[in-house]
Amino acid sequence: MENTMTKTLAINAGSSTLKWKLFSMPDESVIASGLVDRLNLPGSIFTVKRPDGDKYQVTQDNIDYRLAAAMVLSHLKEAGIVKHLHEITGIGHRVVAGGEIFSDSAVVTDETLKQIHSLAQYAPLHNPIEAQYIEIFQQLLPNAKQVAVFDTSLYTNMPKINALYPIPYEYYEKYGARKYGAHGTSHRYVANRTAELLGKPLADLKLITLHLGSGSSISAFDHGKVIDTSMGFTPLAGVMMGTRSGDIDASLVTFLAEKLNISMQEITDILNHKSGLLGISELSPDQRDLEDAEETNPKAKLALDMFANRVVRYIGTYVAELNGLDALVFTAGSGENGIAMRQKIADQLSYFGIQIDTEKNQVRGKERTISPDGAPVDVLVVPTNEELMIARDVQRLTK
Amino acid sequence: MENTMTKTLAINAGSSTLKWKLFSMPDESVIASGLVDRLNLPGSIFTVKRPDGDKYQVTQDNIDYRLAAAMVLSHLKEAGIVKHLHEITGIGHRVVAGGEIFSDSAVVTDETLKQIHSLAQYAPLHNPIEAQYIEIFQQLLPNAKQVAVFDTSLYTNMPKINALYPIPYEYYEKYGARKYGAHGTSHRYVANRTAELLGKPLADLKLITLHLGSGSSISAFDHGKVIDTSMGFTPLAGVMMGTRSGDIDASLVTFLAEKLNISMQEITDILNHKSGLLGISELSPDQRDLEDAEETNPKAKLALDMFANRVVRYIGTYVAELNGLDALVFTAGSGENGIAMRQKIADQLSYFGIQIDTEKNQVRGKERTISPDGAPVDVLVVPTNEELMIARDVQRLTK
Repeated sequence: MENTMTKTLAINAGSSTLKWKLFSMPDESVIASGLVDRLNLPGSIFTVKRPDGDKYQVTQDNIDYRLAAAMVLSHLKEAGIVKHLHEITGIGHRVVAGGEIFSDSAVVTDETLKQIHSLAQYAPLHNPIEAQYIEIFQQLLPNAKQVAVFDTSLYTNMPKINALYPIPYEYYEKYGARKYGAHGTSHRYVANRTAELLGKPLADLKLITLHLGSGSSISAFDHGKVIDTSMGFTPLAGVMMGTRSGDIDASLVTFLAEKLNISMQEITDILNHKSGLLGISELSPDQRDLEDAEETNPKAKLALDMFANRVVRYIGTYVAELNGLDALVFTAGSGENGIAMRQKIADQLSYFGIQIDTEKNQVRGKERTISPDGAPVDVLVVPTNEELMIARDVQRLTK
Repeated sequence: MENTMTKTLAINAGSSTLKWKLFSMPDESVIASGLVDRLNLPGSIFTVKRPDGDKYQVTQDNIDYRLAAAMVLSHLKEAGIVKHLHEITGIGHRVVAGGEIFSDSAVVTDETLKQIHSLAQYAPLHNPIEAQYIEIFQQLLPNAKQVAVFDTSLYTNMPKINALYPIPYEYYEKYGARKYGAHGTSHRYVANRTAELLGKPLADLKLITLHLGSGSSISAFDHGKVIDTSMGFTPLAGVMMGTRSGDIDASLVTFLAEKLNISMQEITDILNHKSGLLGISELSPDQRDLEDAEETNPKAKLALDMFANRVVRYIGTYVAELNGLDALVFTAGSGENGIAMRQKIADQLSYFGIQIDTEKNQVRGKERTISPDGAPVDVLVVPTNEELMIARDVQRLTK
């Protein structure tokens, strides 16, 4: 049995963090996981965790991307987590933008890598870094097969009526101005896991998945296919988020830029980083902080009420687009842990047969059906696991 | 009886048109109506219609606002439509922007007029012209009482969770950046008329009103109060329209302005005048043209399908916000006449109990319930009548 097991590394790289998880496949057990934080800054922090709770941490100034990757691999060997590095036969990388090129994860080739670079205009803060990590691991582990797992590929083949914007058609053809979505790996994991938990094929279900975190997105699955998602051309659109506005009247961009006498870039930056829960509450982008304050702070309460309302609006939109609903699934930070927020959302949706059992809803970060037995719509909490989805894609595409 | 009747003039003025209707009140019969078109252009056209079908038309170059108003009044007298101009005791004006100042129509005073001017920043193409007509009629008919009827006042007191955008709170306080809505006079008329037709008080109903024309908006009435509407800070937002995009990812403003190397103003102009049905179909902003072409023109079909989808999305949103639905009402150009579009929309919403009887749906521009008998949701066609609503407001506020 041991001989057929392989080790797969799932990489989730951002501009200042490198998150990773090492899986034994196909049994999907976690061997180790880690985070390199504050990259390229004084006091970079290198952390490794073992499933038994064992933790290793070291601080070192200005760890860069290449060093971070090298440190992960040498730690795996030195700490005896792997005997030989060639046991790692597959590496999967989360890549933010797959444009219209990728409708599935893809084995990395020279062509794939070139395409990831060429899509940088759609994710200038992410794709170039993610391509760089692929190149770094190509040098460090030349025999491992690498797979790019796109945040957007789930949505590439959405129906055109939902993917396109009502703007001049040529902007889609010339500049790729369409809805790409985001968080696809999370929605894909959660949708599949929900079908398993319900004991039904995903292809038989109408499903709405709520990825509610500091960034939030909502997707609608119709008999196994995604038909719509709340994030848009960029992750600015959709529901209200921690610091992002979500949907607004596009005229506000011009109006506010003129009022504030700032550029389009600056107002877009404000809509991404100073809006959402933070903008309304003037307190925090974090729902936990707002829940602590809401009794005495009307703007904290308003921010939470607006967030719930924007989620309710999208649920209504997707129940309409699905023309029905079998299950509603909460995931990600607030979705998995926000007991009060889940209740607040469900309480507004009784007309759709959406109900939450107050007792069952007392759960954080664990799989559980929280609707009452026999309710018309199953409501679930399903913790997301993007790294496992990445490892599964490596397994599936490199077998 | 004749002695208690008064005559009220309803004025709907735009930048190049002056529409008017003269009512006998309170019996609400139409005495005459007319249009002065192509104002300030060569070949201005002055038209007056009588309820018996009689029509008077004259063409004259460069009729300006003052001359247009004077010609209307002198024609009324010369054609014997009124004996004396002082029979016209009230004049109601549609005013586009009422900001947060006006939550109802208002009798015109010096203060009101000053406020209408001060709100010009929210409707630069409309409010100044509408204020100018009020001043013109003050001079031409100094004894008539004038009333300003705001397109936005219905929405002024919407719940804050729906009126505000998830942007920094101070932009609302300092610059009035919030949802104002539009078409309020039409939605108000249609909602009230629907309640009459259903024989129930508006205060007992959950209602969605669909004003679908070249400009489109959708409103949700919860027990007599509007709780949400699709138009936003400006009439750009909401559903897809003839030439307006409706809702898009705000990031597209910056992205497209950079790609096209044009200013924010220019891209906002494109989103208002070259998008929507016209932008997608590359053919026409008019649904009738697209229906004629859709069998052989895939982009015409796509535009119509996208329009129906955007309406379906908002109906879902508002069924969620209302947490229920008693009636759905179609009005305005496409709503009153678009038989195929009404069917296309309703066919996607069976889950909500929304159904249309194909036979009953064969109706254009007439009041009719088009859902089957006993259907869970009443679906109606109710032709809008903004001018009558204006005349009623004059009557109500000047009695």
